[in-house]
Amino acid sequence: MLIEPKILKGFRDFLPEKQIKRKNIINILENTFTSFGFQTIDTPTLEYKEVLLGKGGGETDKQVYTFKDNGKREVAMRFDLTVPFARFMAAHINELILPFKRYHIDKVWRGENTQRGRYREFIQCDFDIVGVDNASADFEILQLMHSSFKAIGVENIKFKVNHRGIFNNFLTKIEASDKAVEIMRTVDKIGKIGKDKVLEILTDLTNSDSAGEILDYIEPEAGFLQTLDKITVMSGGKSEASDRLYEVYEYLKVIGIEDLFTLDPSITRGLDYYTGIVYETFLKDLPELGSVCSGGRYNNLASIYTKKNIPGVGSSIGLDRLMAGLEELGLIEKKVPGSDVIVLNIEGSSVSHNHFIASVIRDSGLSCEVYLADKKIGNQFGFADKKGISFAILCGSDEIDADKVTLKNINTRENFNKINLGEAIDIIRKSREQ
Amino acid sequence: MLIEPKILKGFRDFLPEKQIKRKNIINILENTFTSFGFQTIDTPTLEYKEVLLGKGGGETDKQVYTFKDNGKREVAMRFDLTVPFARFMAAHINELILPFKRYHIDKVWRGENTQRGRYREFIQCDFDIVGVDNASADFEILQLMHSSFKAIGVENIKFKVNHRGIFNNFLTKIEASDKAVEIMRTVDKIGKIGKDKVLEILTDLTNSDSAGEILDYIEPEAGFLQTLDKITVMSGGKSEASDRLYEVYEYLKVIGIEDLFTLDPSITRGLDYYTGIVYETFLKDLPELGSVCSGGRYNNLASIYTKKNIPGVGSSIGLDRLMAGLEELGLIEKKVPGSDVIVLNIEGSSVSHNHFIASVIRDSGLSCEVYLADKKIGNQFGFADKKGISFAILCGSDEIDADKVTLKNINTRENFNKINLGEAIDIIRKSREQ
Repeated sequence: MLIEPKILKGFRDFLPEKQIKRKNIINILENTFTSFGFQTIDTPTLEYKEVLLGKGGGETDKQVYTFKDNGKREVAMRFDLTVPFARFMAAHINELILPFKRYHIDKVWRGENTQRGRYREFIQCDFDIVGVDNASADFEILQLMHSSFKAIGVENIKFKVNHRGIFNNFLTKIEASDKAVEIMRTVDKIGKIGKDKVLEILTDLTNSDSAGEILDYIEPEAGFLQTLDKITVMSGGKSEASDRLYEVYEYLKVIGIEDLFTLDPSITRGLDYYTGIVYETFLKDLPELGSVCSGGRYNNLASIYTKKNIPGVGSSIGLDRLMAGLEELGLIEKKVPGSDVIVLNIEGSSVSHNHFIASVIRDSGLSCEVYLADKKIGNQFGFADKKGISFAILCGSDEIDADKVTLKNINTRENFNKINLGEAIDIIRKSREQ
Repeated sequence: MLIEPKILKGFRDFLPEKQIKRKNIINILENTFTSFGFQTIDTPTLEYKEVLLGKGGGETDKQVYTFKDNGKREVAMRFDLTVPFARFMAAHINELILPFKRYHIDKVWRGENTQRGRYREFIQCDFDIVGVDNASADFEILQLMHSSFKAIGVENIKFKVNHRGIFNNFLTKIEASDKAVEIMRTVDKIGKIGKDKVLEILTDLTNSDSAGEILDYIEPEAGFLQTLDKITVMSGGKSEASDRLYEVYEYLKVIGIEDLFTLDPSITRGLDYYTGIVYETFLKDLPELGSVCSGGRYNNLASIYTKKNIPGVGSSIGLDRLMAGLEELGLIEKKVPGSDVIVLNIEGSSVSHNHFIASVIRDSGLSCEVYLADKKIGNQFGFADKKGISFAILCGSDEIDADKVTLKNINTRENFNKINLGEAIDIIRKSREQ
């Protein structure tokens, strides 16, 4: 009886082509994060259920994979990298150097309905600054978002920013702050459910006057500063929250990237734990994909675990959704390059000598593989071509006797008959440098 | 009520210092695998329980994390990367180019008892060659094992090799092949439970004569070839299995690494799925750590899922156990280097100008961070020192007015007062190249 080699819905196998592309993006992001002095950490996949749940709001909780382990402990698989990070900070605050800048790129799991770009297992790339609550840190996360997308070749992008503190001031002013969480969750959905539906829900939550005012509040003006001026006035005038956003915008201008940022007062992020600036990121050529990088300031997240004050701000790239978008836009390289050279297994060649040649080539710093099967030469060239390998070395009995190799450029069909191995290595290296 | 930020037994947080070291080793391994033409893949963390279980032998099954997901499916977390790979091969054999060389570095989970170097969540580094059953592939895995350890700086190492086919021939000859699995599992434990206990179990399984013969069989001779000669004779003379091992040894000699390999006929690997060559790897200075890299040939593993013949050979590095060993032996760098330079937040400096300077430095290819908090200068230098940063840039109002920066080498305490930013970048770059 055969077992069907099927996989669970919402989970995926990654074949080399796709996984190498994903790894390449991850490498670029890691280099970008590192260039800003961010350091990587790791936390467990499984945590105590009580440690993870009840932090992100009810909707997330329902999606979490939970179970009893063999020791009857209630455990859960992490559904994001932020809540485990808050737990991590509470546990290790005394061992870390503050302000602490960390990144973490790894899988998370949510048992949600599968739709385009949504999977039950997916990779998040988180980067956070912990231990300071100021505009310098808020700005640096935005700057790093911009640098990350630039590094992976995405320039046509829009960052939508908002500040929940200003929104809270506004809701206090219109005496609707008791319903703040529900109101923010509602306006956050305006792109999905439409203005009329939002108005309806807001009217139920408050009254028709307040609902109208809220709709007015979340309507952006022509530019960032105009919108900020408007919501500052509507929220009762200048405050710490509005000052912070003016300052962050000033920093964006000094770096010269302010045009990529818009202030959208309807962006609130559904999650309860945000307290200050919040943001989302959209590919301008594919806005319907949704946000590919979101986050904000969460000054009280670790307060579930510790009495110490640990303010934080951070952002998270949904790598798999982003990749789906980049593929749709043709922004990912079509073919992954293979090894620099392959040593073919031809008639008269010696398997051990082929491995020896390959090992000398690798010692020179090039990548080199040996054709391991026993197939016709045409099949071997086909193999090399499919794997994106540009050079082949053939070493039959004539070559072995003369202590030479024959090199073929698979793309140009150029032949270099019976040359020294060192010459072959030079030719390959030169072609690679072009 | 605070929730204690505790983690599950057998699971670990990795702080930056340790996680960066782990990542560095992973990067070196990835580069080594890639230099041999191996390509990475990914498979799901969760699989159908029936897909994963019953493949590795009863002892492993008991350790697997299994549960019902929200859709009432019986699921399991992968306990190794080999069984999911067999499932992957059965599912995708027609999309892959054979022979297929893959590597996969990721976490696996086993709810086993925790002891030194053993955790419930740990990283495995697997590399396999699928689609050929020959000495060339068997050899290449051994060679890659050697290259991998060499690349991470481990030279004092011993690889123990054996061939289960020769053992099977021997057991057939002494008419004990009906107990082959139990016998192999028993002799495999000789290092743990000792010779007397093995003799006792073997006598129970067979009889005292056979038990004595088996103990004689697993006793290594002075050298690889002498041992191979002996077990070849005891197994009834030359066979495909013994020929294979002679050939693999010949290849090791051509590359000049044969001295690192010993033939130990007691090495059988507990797992049922091995059919040919098997091997384990020991740090000579820390043999009690156990094997840090094990594997072998498994020609029928995918036959659970498909009627297609998919022979494979591969090996797996237990990264976390290896790291524990390397740390004990002092083979891991003591301190991780930090960013190339930090821009300090001094009196008279401008936060936005500091970020601007940092961004110019990063554009030049150096890593640069901005000190984000508002602390005394001494604290900031302490921060830089703890993070392993060698240079600091100070840019107060004098420097801003003159369009200059002041650079300090934190290690040598050298000062470069009011120089151009370009000069500062050159100084840092030259120091880094030394």
